[in-house]
Amino acid sequence: MLVKKLKETFEQYDQKEVVLQGWVRTNRKSKALGFIELNDGSCFSNVQIVYTDALNNFDEVSKITLGSALEVKGTVVLTPEAKQPFEIQATSVEVLGLCDHDYPLQKKRHSFEYMREIPHIRPRANTYYAMFRLRSVLSMAIHTFFQDRGFVYVHTPEITGNDAEGAGECFTVTCRQDDEYEKDFFGKHAQLTVSGQLHVEPFAQTYRNVYTFGPTFRAENSNTTRHASEFWMIEPELAFADLSDNMDCIEEMIKYCIKYCLEHAKEEMEFFEKMIDKDCIKRITEVANSNFKRMTYTEAIKELEKVKDTFENKDIFWGMDLQSEHERYICEKVVKGPVFLIDYPKEIKAFYMRVNDDQKTVAACDLLVPYVGELVGGSQREERYDVLEAKIKEMGIAQETLQWYLDLRRFGGCKHSGFGLGFDRMLMYLSGVQNIRDVQPYPRTPRNLIF
Amino acid sequence: MLVKKLKETFEQYDQKEVVLQGWVRTNRKSKALGFIELNDGSCFSNVQIVYTDALNNFDEVSKITLGSALEVKGTVVLTPEAKQPFEIQATSVEVLGLCDHDYPLQKKRHSFEYMREIPHIRPRANTYYAMFRLRSVLSMAIHTFFQDRGFVYVHTPEITGNDAEGAGECFTVTCRQDDEYEKDFFGKHAQLTVSGQLHVEPFAQTYRNVYTFGPTFRAENSNTTRHASEFWMIEPELAFADLSDNMDCIEEMIKYCIKYCLEHAKEEMEFFEKMIDKDCIKRITEVANSNFKRMTYTEAIKELEKVKDTFENKDIFWGMDLQSEHERYICEKVVKGPVFLIDYPKEIKAFYMRVNDDQKTVAACDLLVPYVGELVGGSQREERYDVLEAKIKEMGIAQETLQWYLDLRRFGGCKHSGFGLGFDRMLMYLSGVQNIRDVQPYPRTPRNLIF
Repeated sequence: MLVKKLKETFEQYDQKEVVLQGWVRTNRKSKALGFIELNDGSCFSNVQIVYTDALNNFDEVSKITLGSALEVKGTVVLTPEAKQPFEIQATSVEVLGLCDHDYPLQKKRHSFEYMREIPHIRPRANTYYAMFRLRSVLSMAIHTFFQDRGFVYVHTPEITGNDAEGAGECFTVTCRQDDEYEKDFFGKHAQLTVSGQLHVEPFAQTYRNVYTFGPTFRAENSNTTRHASEFWMIEPELAFADLSDNMDCIEEMIKYCIKYCLEHAKEEMEFFEKMIDKDCIKRITEVANSNFKRMTYTEAIKELEKVKDTFENKDIFWGMDLQSEHERYICEKVVKGPVFLIDYPKEIKAFYMRVNDDQKTVAACDLLVPYVGELVGGSQREERYDVLEAKIKEMGIAQETLQWYLDLRRFGGCKHSGFGLGFDRMLMYLSGVQNIRDVQPYPRTPRNLIF
Repeated sequence: MLVKKLKETFEQYDQKEVVLQGWVRTNRKSKALGFIELNDGSCFSNVQIVYTDALNNFDEVSKITLGSALEVKGTVVLTPEAKQPFEIQATSVEVLGLCDHDYPLQKKRHSFEYMREIPHIRPRANTYYAMFRLRSVLSMAIHTFFQDRGFVYVHTPEITGNDAEGAGECFTVTCRQDDEYEKDFFGKHAQLTVSGQLHVEPFAQTYRNVYTFGPTFRAENSNTTRHASEFWMIEPELAFADLSDNMDCIEEMIKYCIKYCLEHAKEEMEFFEKMIDKDCIKRITEVANSNFKRMTYTEAIKELEKVKDTFENKDIFWGMDLQSEHERYICEKVVKGPVFLIDYPKEIKAFYMRVNDDQKTVAACDLLVPYVGELVGGSQREERYDVLEAKIKEMGIAQETLQWYLDLRRFGGCKHSGFGLGFDRMLMYLSGVQNIRDVQPYPRTPRNLIF
């Protein structure tokens, strides 16, 4: 049976025999008595196996190495006065797979750098063991949130011929060893997507509320702790929704995800609180219980100007792109909580964002949260054909590549909005883990492609 | 409000005013009375709007084109004697976005081929409208099935340096226009994954039960109705599980998904039954209610030999790869229902499948279902280091590229099994839609890359 189920219902198993499989986390013995901490993957915490020299293979069992796979038969014994509420008194311990002595995980603490070299082994180490279950739980939180609200999940394509979005540098997808793409597999230049947003909009014009959730790619040669070449994005799109509706949806989603993870990854979050970031549960609980404020970019600039000398980047002016230190100041010091900055200068935002009546700003919203700064970016989309067409020309984008996207405005277009949440960054935010390489199963970064 | 919600609770809204947004599916008027079928994307069926010349913009409304976006205010009136149980008597109809007259969808039926040229518009046509919601519903069925059972969802990488799996031809991922991959982004040759299986196995050795669900790629130049260059796969992996456990999981999953889709995409499945494949609901309901049989490959060959002259491919012999006509004969005529074929000749299966004691076959299982043949392929994995190492040598695979995979057998390895379900093919199976290009939002096939 699964350890998780046993932990939830152990009282029913008092004095009963159970069969468990799992891997050895610790094994210590003294004379005629031994203890194995066994983990079967079904929950974060281990189960304690007690064995004695009544086992006919006691010597063998006492030498079982860390990481070995076992099948244990034993009796459940309640231990109300001990730390763990029950233990298993083993009647048989069978070794299914012994772990060799050059096992890369030893009892000591290993560095993150070391762990990144062994992505096939590191999920067994506590931090990663907690992280990759949290990753699964957060994925399900996302799907449950949107599906419960009738949003349709759309698999936007990974391979695209559309290079107009301009969100970042792209990888080429090819079957050739030269650049003769007209002879290539697709008969033209193909690349990996940087965003599903343009591709998902037609579905919002059909199903009203939709979302993507899948891998996206950036070929940027940036070796930071927050950038990966492959990462997962959530991109919802809402028809008949303006910027305010969009922010309502973002706020509801973030709060839902936090509560879902605190409930469904409780042991994991407690581990992060204990070992990685002592404030993580407090921080996200506060966010889940707060009202997200809204502030214009212009107001934010005024606030920043007041204290510009305190920043590393002191050059504060209307029209600038905010740096992380500025974003954090606004939410941590000014608002003291999550805040949407809205109405950014149009020059620093994407071509598809709706131009406001002032002709200078666009209906964008970035959600800033304490500790990390920007967590979500969104906007109302430009639904006016003429305005969008002019913008595309202004930006120097070849109109023919986006004519299909423009045409959506001619065929029953309406106001609509959407946003993007970087899934991996949300995991960093929840856990306090500082490097994106430690929240992804197999991180891909410049000159780094293991397996 | 959403039409779906109104349909579920219309009796509470009798004589009440509601505000709806949506797109016009039909608009017909006679003298002082008009009818609009409005669809807002929240459910398959439309809502009927009745308008009269009491509207101050009656003339404008009567000319509203197909596909236009509207906001309608009106009173809910129960119509117990009519086909639809209620209608909306409009008090105001506002045009949010008129649809131009060159709208690619007209009232007539369009060919699939025509539709494939307009992936940004076709979701609004009934077949696609039903399909892409079914796609979303089936995705959620998959996640719910596995998460309810404690499986951990793993995002295996799309970009991989591991080209040893041999499941198919690969796309290269590059930033260069030549083949000097050592100077490339990752410092070596990188490609798009053909399967997440090898990458997910380390997670099964940690969490016991895991699954992937994401895009995979094949650069095969095959223009068939069943092959796409980009498609989504589900690849679960179960530790401490043998072939029989694996088949139990497959059977439970398939039945769960069918029932989930019949419940959550009822209108859509009824549409497919009416317009695409009159047997689809009957066929999948039978499968959901049947016991999946199990038969060895060797027995199947004997059955096929008896009737070999009835096949196009008459050359039946032990060691052959079964064709679709053979698979369909076994499940449709011999078993008369779903059947697992097991224990295939090792020469026609992948290197990681566990060799049986006869040394000639491997512990593989393919699920064959009436109407399509193979739906799922799985196997018990070779957990014995020496046997796997010998197999890798025998297959001529460079061992150093798979040493990490081999090492899993030295570090607490145990028996384990897994399978792969082609998500797009499952959609074809459920709906009866015959071409994979019609179940994917933006199908990618040789020389075909639209947007």
